Amino acid sequence: MKIQTAIAHFDEPLYLESGRILETYELKYEMYGEMNETKSNVIVVFHALTGSYHAAGRYEGETKAGWWDPLIGDGKIIDTTHFCVICVNILGSCFGSTGPMSVNVKTKEPLRLKFPVLTISDMVRAQMNLFARLGIKEAYAIIGGSLGGMQGLCMSIEYPEFAKRVILLATTYATGPWAIAWNKIAIEGIVNDPRFKNGNYNPEDFEEEGLLSFAIGRMAGHISFLSPYSMNKKFGRNYVETDGLYELFGRFQVERYMEYNGYSFAKRFDPLSYLYIIKAMNIFDATRNYDSLEDSIKHIKAKLTLISFQGDCLFMPEEMALIKTTLENMGRSDRVDYVCIDSQYGHDAFLVEYDKFDFYIKKALESKV
Amino acid sequence: MKIQTAIAHFDEPLYLESGRILETYELKYEMYGEMNETKSNVIVVFHALTGSYHAAGRYEGETKAGWWDPLIGDGKIIDTTHFCVICVNILGSCFGSTGPMSVNVKTKEPLRLKFPVLTISDMVRAQMNLFARLGIKEAYAIIGGSLGGMQGLCMSIEYPEFAKRVILLATTYATGPWAIAWNKIAIEGIVNDPRFKNGNYNPEDFEEEGLLSFAIGRMAGHISFLSPYSMNKKFGRNYVETDGLYELFGRFQVERYMEYNGYSFAKRFDPLSYLYIIKAMNIFDATRNYDSLEDSIKHIKAKLTLISFQGDCLFMPEEMALIKTTLENMGRSDRVDYVCIDSQYGHDAFLVEYDKFDFYIKKALESKV
Repeated sequence: MKIQTAIAHFDEPLYLESGRILETYELKYEMYGEMNETKSNVIVVFHALTGSYHAAGRYEGETKAGWWDPLIGDGKIIDTTHFCVICVNILGSCFGSTGPMSVNVKTKEPLRLKFPVLTISDMVRAQMNLFARLGIKEAYAIIGGSLGGMQGLCMSIEYPEFAKRVILLATTYATGPWAIAWNKIAIEGIVNDPRFKNGNYNPEDFEEEGLLSFAIGRMAGHISFLSPYSMNKKFGRNYVETDGLYELFGRFQVERYMEYNGYSFAKRFDPLSYLYIIKAMNIFDATRNYDSLEDSIKHIKAKLTLISFQGDCLFMPEEMALIKTTLENMGRSDRVDYVCIDSQYGHDAFLVEYDKFDFYIKKALESKV
Repeated sequence: MKIQTAIAHFDEPLYLESGRILETYELKYEMYGEMNETKSNVIVVFHALTGSYHAAGRYEGETKAGWWDPLIGDGKIIDTTHFCVICVNILGSCFGSTGPMSVNVKTKEPLRLKFPVLTISDMVRAQMNLFARLGIKEAYAIIGGSLGGMQGLCMSIEYPEFAKRVILLATTYATGPWAIAWNKIAIEGIVNDPRFKNGNYNPEDFEEEGLLSFAIGRMAGHISFLSPYSMNKKFGRNYVETDGLYELFGRFQVERYMEYNGYSFAKRFDPLSYLYIIKAMNIFDATRNYDSLEDSIKHIKAKLTLISFQGDCLFMPEEMALIKTTLENMGRSDRVDYVCIDSQYGHDAFLVEYDKFDFYIKKALESKV
């Protein structure tokens, strides 16, 4: 599989939903496989909250492959011998695309909290500019889970001619108060940490251990990614230390899991980027500029495939099912497939239980539209 | 309704499950109504994690009545013209009973982290000592929700002769990894806060605003107390500020709710007490000293009434249903009533939706045993 990583620089301004402007911006992206002559074999994959452009393959010396590697590659479900897959690091993130800690060319300083609030729509518009530059007029399919699913839904509404097939996993049409509440833990953790300094932190100050309170917010996220059932299966009431005293008072396996995931994450992700991205997630509401959900999704021309997961505690299956029933009530049941996967893994399933849903992606990619 | 508040001082040592000893201890408690001559009209009510002895009534100048006031009082479901209700502040708490910040009589210093780890069984044993002192040989009923339900279950297993009727709400027989994970947010928040000083804090240092990171842990708790459904109903995607700009980027109502509940709580609860109580909750497992759940609950002689709530995201209805089916499989279905209340309020329902479950408490109290 051929992998190309690149950064695209845009000198023309990006007009944001807020009315503010990004004078210039950059997008880092990765491509797997090769575009055909007519550029009609492109599949866009959107990453989730903390993901990056690196969706597949493994660089030399890298211990972990890209975040959706089991699905993307030569001979895999998203077969890079036929398709050219492209994944763009979202605007606001900290893996090469422009975000709050990017250095402003004029001032030579990061914008930090002066960076404008972004919406999913802004992120999508920036990506459309990249696709235009690459000469991609139409995507064979677009696919995304969680925040990536929001991008996919937004793109299919706002650029209805762009993608023939839209596959959304573990996502919603509007972020509910439950998810906003989870994000709130992270926000409060970050902004109240004395080392955050109202955004004027020096990342070197917490290089070694990360911003601890950020880690705690991330731990809360890790509860929402799993479910009571998956936790019972994965951890039960097992203790990490098992001699007599510890059995009574020691550390639980689930506690170690949360420590590990929280603290390691805080070392590799920028707190300001996190704040901006969860803000974009919180304000995401595909009905916002429309009268109703129906009025919004009536613009979609693509064939929709919706994959939700039983026990998803962040975006409930009912939320995606509502997109389906709304389309059905509009007489468009032929344009939407919905499946709720019998998972005990919760929200994280779209990054874990590939064998439970890859069939539906295959089917969606093979469908005539 | 007659209210009596008192502190009982115990000079004899309390031998703890850990093998450690509390040389002396105090329990603060409150009584509503009057004991009859034979002391056969006593109903014990156990409070939850952050509750206190103040279960009912309203003191002069107090804005909020006791935490179960709608149920306890003259002519109410737990009728204090007939019953004498007693509620004891649990050991380890910070409302008058002995806890980590209580001043040691010898050293004149609080024990802080040298305070011994307590179990639910220890808390219950201390209360049994108080009841013995008060001459209460037998309770008409014992009632508790959440951590209070753990105390009730523990008491009915370890002191099977004590209560005739046991009513448990929104609780479990063993704390699952999901609940332990929620508690972990609070633990990490507290111990990583520089002002916590490894337990050697001076409460006056954060008297005004509370320990901020503790507030964040409490916010996580508040997610678990509600449910996606109750949050949708209560908050939806409503903004607090609603002019044009804020509607896009402002604060959500659910965020304000979490701020309010988190920060106000941190001002009134002691962080060390919180650590000790959630430790007791985490290690609670009614099967721990037995071969199985069956082997544990076979000791219960009381009539059990189990009330769980649909959408309880902390202790799932299935956990209480398992107590019921286990008793049924032992041929004791006549000794247990189980109901799952159709609530969209989640865990908090036992402190809110009184009209949905008070009938079952009434029925349990009227039952012949």
